[in-house]
Amino acid sequence: MRAISQQNFIQQLSIDCVIFGYKDGNLQVLIPKLNLIGDFWALPSGFIFQHESIDQAAQRILEERAGLKEVFLDQFRVFGDAQRTNRAFFKKMVDLNQEKFGEIFIEKDDYDWITKRFVSIGYYALVDINKVNPRTTELDESIDWYDVHDIPEMILDHNQQVQQALEMLRINFDHKLIWFNLLPEKFTMKELQKLYEVVFDKPFRRNNFQKKMLDLDVLERLEKKFTGAANKAPFLYRFKK
Amino acid sequence: MRAISQQNFIQQLSIDCVIFGYKDGNLQVLIPKLNLIGDFWALPSGFIFQHESIDQAAQRILEERAGLKEVFLDQFRVFGDAQRTNRAFFKKMVDLNQEKFGEIFIEKDDYDWITKRFVSIGYYALVDINKVNPRTTELDESIDWYDVHDIPEMILDHNQQVQQALEMLRINFDHKLIWFNLLPEKFTMKELQKLYEVVFDKPFRRNNFQKKMLDLDVLERLEKKFTGAANKAPFLYRFKK
Repeated sequence: MRAISQQNFIQQLSIDCVIFGYKDGNLQVLIPKLNLIGDFWALPSGFIFQHESIDQAAQRILEERAGLKEVFLDQFRVFGDAQRTNRAFFKKMVDLNQEKFGEIFIEKDDYDWITKRFVSIGYYALVDINKVNPRTTELDESIDWYDVHDIPEMILDHNQQVQQALEMLRINFDHKLIWFNLLPEKFTMKELQKLYEVVFDKPFRRNNFQKKMLDLDVLERLEKKFTGAANKAPFLYRFKK
Repeated sequence: MRAISQQNFIQQLSIDCVIFGYKDGNLQVLIPKLNLIGDFWALPSGFIFQHESIDQAAQRILEERAGLKEVFLDQFRVFGDAQRTNRAFFKKMVDLNQEKFGEIFIEKDDYDWITKRFVSIGYYALVDINKVNPRTTELDESIDWYDVHDIPEMILDHNQQVQQALEMLRINFDHKLIWFNLLPEKFTMKELQKLYEVVFDKPFRRNNFQKKMLDLDVLERLEKKFTGAANKAPFLYRFKK
């Protein structure tokens, strides 16, 4: 198992990644189960090297902890309650896993370091589940997609982080839509509406939705989709460059 | 002058406050000029004690550095480039101000601490300039409101922070409108439109604006404003509870 040392990290600062996945009309969240005695789920997380930016750290952590590369990751919130790192809980986790932690954290100082208060920068992304291949690392027993309505209880404030990330995803969805890259190059208004309905977890009225989308001024209308029945065929759209 | 010691702070983590002020149809930013040899402007900034949450720290810093209490402050972005703390610049500032820094930072270790890389959490607020009384502290030579189009060159990435805060203010404006508390209890659609035009720095078309606002479903329509000419009098609105 890889040793983690505090030496080259910024102290008391971490990064957590909330990775939403879209597939078959469902919104899911990517969550590893830690390779420890006891059932501990936690968001893909890590620390910031002195020489890298926080954005670079987030990308590296997501690659190291979940095998995902070149994902459009963005910050959504910093979690900085003085009591968010439950030291009693952490101590229990460490005690249960003395041997494993002994392999991960070589020095006694590193145990102390990891149980200090941490301020954590939350990053989020929304990916097409068909286009990514998460993998476990030596730190994890498994890594799975969970329906956003049915997420396991995680350590620290990670469940709360998912809720806040979802709120930010919704607030920014109109603005970030193009970056998320969740639709084929050409798509129908109905496909776009389905994506919105999954993210917002509620139905939209067809006419209102279409008007809202056209008002955003990000769509370019193309030819009709070929379905054989020309008069009922829906128009295709793509995002303006 | 008050001594600042690294002892009780989280290392390498700071908070910067972008305080927008609204007055007479103008958007302004509150910026202190540091009480140093050389002309150095900087956002109201500070560090996080081990025992306080980042939100508490932001409130305390804003009170200590600008005399503002109970302001609706919110995070908008973390600034974490590895090179954002220009150590050469800081060294020059320290060298120019040996004597003053000697009074602020007692120990040699504290000099070193302050010139390390810092990750900074940006907080922002929008206040009614008529309702607040900024004051200078011993760290500042002056503190003034500057028009958002005419801001002095500040240290570090503080000018960039103002731009990013403004972007976030606009993205969140519909959602945060009620919290900002910038209008009288009852107001006309025209007054609301003027506020939007100042924040977004562009004109809105009256009918479109009114429709957008009513669609937000946060306004309650009241009686007409008494002007003497009943048929032309505008309706008054207030925010729904």
